[in-house]
Amino acid sequence: MAEAVETMDGWYCLHDLRAIDWISWKLAPSEERQAAITEFQELLTTWDTVEQNKNGSHALYSILGHKADFIFMILRPTMKELSEVELAFNKSKLADFTTQTYSYVSIVELSKYMVKEGQEDPEQSPEVQARLKPKLPKWDHICFYPMDKRRQGNDNWYALPMEDRKKLMYEHGMTGRKYAGKIRQIITGSMGLDDWEWSVTLFAHDALQIKKLVSEMRFDEVTTRYGDFGSFYVGNILTKEEVPSFFHV
Amino acid sequence: MAEAVETMDGWYCLHDLRAIDWISWKLAPSEERQAAITEFQELLTTWDTVEQNKNGSHALYSILGHKADFIFMILRPTMKELSEVELAFNKSKLADFTTQTYSYVSIVELSKYMVKEGQEDPEQSPEVQARLKPKLPKWDHICFYPMDKRRQGNDNWYALPMEDRKKLMYEHGMTGRKYAGKIRQIITGSMGLDDWEWSVTLFAHDALQIKKLVSEMRFDEVTTRYGDFGSFYVGNILTKEEVPSFFHV
Amino acid sequence: MAEAVETMDGWYCLHDLRAIDWISWKLAPSEERQAAITEFQELLTTWDTVEQNKNGSHALYSILGHKADFIFMILRPTMKELSEVELAFNKSKLADFTTQTYSYVSIVELSKYMVKEGQEDPEQSPEVQARLKPKLPKWDHICFYPMDKRRQGNDNWYALPMEDRKKLMYEHGMTGRKYAGKIRQIITGSMGLDDWEWSVTLFAHDALQIKKLVSEMRFDEVTTRYGDFGSFYVGNILTKEEVPSFFHV
Amino acid sequence: MAEAVETMDGWYCLHDLRAIDWISWKLAPSEERQAAITEFQELLTTWDTVEQNKNGSHALYSILGHKADFIFMILRPTMKELSEVELAFNKSKLADFTTQTYSYVSIVELSKYMVKEGQEDPEQSPEVQARLKPKLPKWDHICFYPMDKRRQGNDNWYALPMEDRKKLMYEHGMTGRKYAGKIRQIITGSMGLDDWEWSVTLFAHDALQIKKLVSEMRFDEVTTRYGDFGSFYVGNILTKEEVPSFFHV
Amino acid sequence: MAEAVETMDGWYCLHDLRAIDWISWKLAPSEERQAAITEFQELLTTWDTVEQNKNGSHALYSILGHKADFIFMILRPTMKELSEVELAFNKSKLADFTTQTYSYVSIVELSKYMVKEGQEDPEQSPEVQARLKPKLPKWDHICFYPMDKRRQGNDNWYALPMEDRKKLMYEHGMTGRKYAGKIRQIITGSMGLDDWEWSVTLFAHDALQIKKLVSEMRFDEVTTRYGDFGSFYVGNILTKEEVPSFFHV
Repeated sequence: MAEAVETMDGWYCLHDLRAIDWISWKLAPSEERQAAITEFQELLTTWDTVEQNKNGSHALYSILGHKADFIFMILRPTMKELSEVELAFNKSKLADFTTQTYSYVSIVELSKYMVKEGQEDPEQSPEVQARLKPKLPKWDHICFYPMDKRRQGNDNWYALPMEDRKKLMYEHGMTGRKYAGKIRQIITGSMGLDDWEWSVTLFAHDALQIKKLVSEMRFDEVTTRYGDFGSFYVGNILTKEEVPSFFHV
Repeated sequence: MAEAVETMDGWYCLHDLRAIDWISWKLAPSEERQAAITEFQELLTTWDTVEQNKNGSHALYSILGHKADFIFMILRPTMKELSEVELAFNKSKLADFTTQTYSYVSIVELSKYMVKEGQEDPEQSPEVQARLKPKLPKWDHICFYPMDKRRQGNDNWYALPMEDRKKLMYEHGMTGRKYAGKIRQIITGSMGLDDWEWSVTLFAHDALQIKKLVSEMRFDEVTTRYGDFGSFYVGNILTKEEVPSFFHV
Repeated sequence: MAEAVETMDGWYCLHDLRAIDWISWKLAPSEERQAAITEFQELLTTWDTVEQNKNGSHALYSILGHKADFIFMILRPTMKELSEVELAFNKSKLADFTTQTYSYVSIVELSKYMVKEGQEDPEQSPEVQARLKPKLPKWDHICFYPMDKRRQGNDNWYALPMEDRKKLMYEHGMTGRKYAGKIRQIITGSMGLDDWEWSVTLFAHDALQIKKLVSEMRFDEVTTRYGDFGSFYVGNILTKEEVPSFFHV
Repeated sequence: MAEAVETMDGWYCLHDLRAIDWISWKLAPSEERQAAITEFQELLTTWDTVEQNKNGSHALYSILGHKADFIFMILRPTMKELSEVELAFNKSKLADFTTQTYSYVSIVELSKYMVKEGQEDPEQSPEVQARLKPKLPKWDHICFYPMDKRRQGNDNWYALPMEDRKKLMYEHGMTGRKYAGKIRQIITGSMGLDDWEWSVTLFAHDALQIKKLVSEMRFDEVTTRYGDFGSFYVGNILTKEEVPSFFHV
Repeated sequence: MAEAVETMDGWYCLHDLRAIDWISWKLAPSEERQAAITEFQELLTTWDTVEQNKNGSHALYSILGHKADFIFMILRPTMKELSEVELAFNKSKLADFTTQTYSYVSIVELSKYMVKEGQEDPEQSPEVQARLKPKLPKWDHICFYPMDKRRQGNDNWYALPMEDRKKLMYEHGMTGRKYAGKIRQIITGSMGLDDWEWSVTLFAHDALQIKKLVSEMRFDEVTTRYGDFGSFYVGNILTKEEVPSFFHV
């Protein structure tokens, strides 16, 4: 029985992925479409206010391919508030023209693998608090995927001694550091909350860096032997101002 | 051939998960929606009466994300009564605006791993009977997931000697005990009844404790080597009084 | 290359699982619903006649949860007749309000593992013939699931010598015997006919005995190392007389 | 790196599986249904002509259970012609009342495992050509399934030396030979064309022989250790003359 | 921790697979169908212009079977432009009669396994640039499939030393070379972008060569032990001129 790692936990997180029903959207009268867009922009404005008041944050991106047409990623202090955001969208007019193709429930998480013994508990430091309750970047591209640490035969992450896990996570962190300024990464933990153990959300100015980072990390032992991945969702930023042209038909 | 563990079995259990068809719900005339809500609240009242008469229990929670919008978990003395509850809901007006996205059939279960040799059979003790026919808590959050004990290569739970299983279950129980007062856990067995071997339902005042418990338990050997999990469903309590505002559009 | 076991084969079997489209059912005029129920009861009566003439047998049960609302299990002397039963139901009015969520094609089967060497071929004995062409019991509960014998790495059933398989099947049979009178079991073989190798159908007076039997058998080595299972479907008997109240809305 | 086996390749093959939408079919006016049936019979007649001209072959069978209601298996000299057959059916009236639930693209294939060294290339022999461009039998029953040779850990077919594969395939062929006259088997290869590596189509006078053959072969080492199977589809022959009664409602 | 291979990356790529809703297409008035076809041809013309200006490339093929009816494969310099192409099609009239059954997001990729030490960086050479930003061939047949390199137990590609991977990739390349002139292959990388690690798109004059190539490669050690494949999609070229007859009903 290996020693469990402790975590520091921040805001609750909902990744909400929607496909647009273009057929019924085109069939809707122009005024109904306009009303739906306006209401959605107003919803985005209330989210902006929450963000300005540091009571949460959000990101809106279009998504490529058949898995979804757009994603919103919502951060809030409680699970109840997350629920209210989802419910409010579901009750909005625009929601009538979308299907929720996937979603993910989790909590922003930092592990204590890197905390040195004897070190003061970092959880209350302002820097850590800022990472646990982050303002999501508005960079050009997003990449979201859920993942597990493998528990199969000889490749069982949870059976490794703490020291080995620390070492592998350290190496992994070193790979990540090479992409500082190019990629911003938000890790959320979801054991007990959703079907995978973590979600990873990457923000990038240049989408190629997403591919470069994920490819390089696949050769880190922690990924090579212990990383199992769900679906990958990628796309481009969709600003509140671009919403009307995105939906214009 | 390892010795089978005996179980003590209580009430039959149905987890019933529903997604709301918001589009048709919004299209319904206001009086039809009102009638559906009133009828659903009346159904909840009959369930309350059953619970007061100690002939069963139930819980109603909203669920986050695409997997469902709400869950009801029903306990009844027989499988026939479970069926009647499900059928009654299906025949209700509100059901016309929902899809049953998942369900789970099982029986509240306590294993006899912890019963000492020579000890009197505990099944008829009032404390055990109360745990087998529990009144479900009305705490703020729910987490429901099905699970298996693994039977793969060298990680085969059912091939372990009884003593080893006892020891691993004991350690696992010790982890659970740390969360006393924070998490209440109902285990149901479903071999022969549904696609996984057990279901776990956690109730919590603070949703973060769900994540903490499930994460810590992943390092228990019984989980590390032998735990396989289905989907996780989490959400917030939905009281009878909150039903109208939840459904209000 | 291990020696293949011989089988004795009886009636062809179709498990046919249906979900009810309650929304369209409620929308149908009362006379249309009544006509559909009457026609279905007439269909059941023709099946009763077949059963009385010993040209087949059938069972009708309601099913709990999202997987289906009811099941009919049909036994007939030929695959062509099975097809005709399915086609007749599909052409009936009630079928318009159902979806076929699952089905299973197989043949009632007894293996010759237990036949002793030198023993006369038992296939033509009246007792064996009665088991190969059984009248299905009308007990309170049903449990249906498909299964495979595992072929993975060191756990490969088909690579075991005949003697080992005989021994493991014998032990398994001993577990089953404890439930005589409580559980009646029909095994059907489906290699070449459907996606799993066998189906198991259990009939019980007390649903708890289904859970007890399946749980105890999981510790039989033949299951522990070699049993892989599909979905489990459970429910309550639905007599011809109960059909109108089951469908009444 | 093991030596690749060579293949001899014949006609292109499409297995096309369709479920009937009985609800909309019953709602269609009687003349529309009649027209759809007539048009479908005419299509079958054009296929008959192709078959008579030895430019292809086809089979039409009803299918049991939820996976499909009927299958047509089409053989043609080119992939382009297969596409045209599928497109022609999709544009026909009957197609409006069906859903394509599965399909399979492949090429009739004979491996050269059994060709002896020094032997003349058999590909151009009339007997081999007849097997590569076969006239499909009109026997009572069909069984279709796709399959792979396993590549897992120590059970990796493609890593076996050619001689071992030859030996295993020879034994497998011996099992098959026992069913000569009872089962006719068409093997098609689909690497690069569809999701499995081969498809197997069995034709039988007596459906029980399908079960017997597939069961016996499961004990051939080539299957025990290296056979992975997709879904099995079985059914009864549906002649052009039976089409009206099959569809009659 | 093995050394990561470097890649050279070219144009962004979207494989977009569509099924036609033949029922609603046939129900549409003839003028609406004509308008949809004309608009689609105009869209193809704008893509032709992009291709002529060397700002991208595209391919349009019909697809056999139930997985899709046609595919377009789009190459563009940025992910934003890919998104715009997909959005433009979704907003077109023809899209209303299609469902997006699958899609794949990736980037044209060449690995540096074959670059010799001390050799100048080949990325900027005109030959390499032409392969990274290719004009897609208009050959008769297409085959598209996604794939992974395996990470399972002892078969873990990412744990192999660089030299071993080089050697295996070299052998694999030798197999590919035999098909020069018969098959043209485009490899795209998708780590971080989609659910598999690479996509392979093959173009062929003769569809049989697709089967021959994929079959022969299955015996290359890199595939035998390390290749995992998704679905295969195959079909015939669909020129702009053939679009009206393809859609004609």
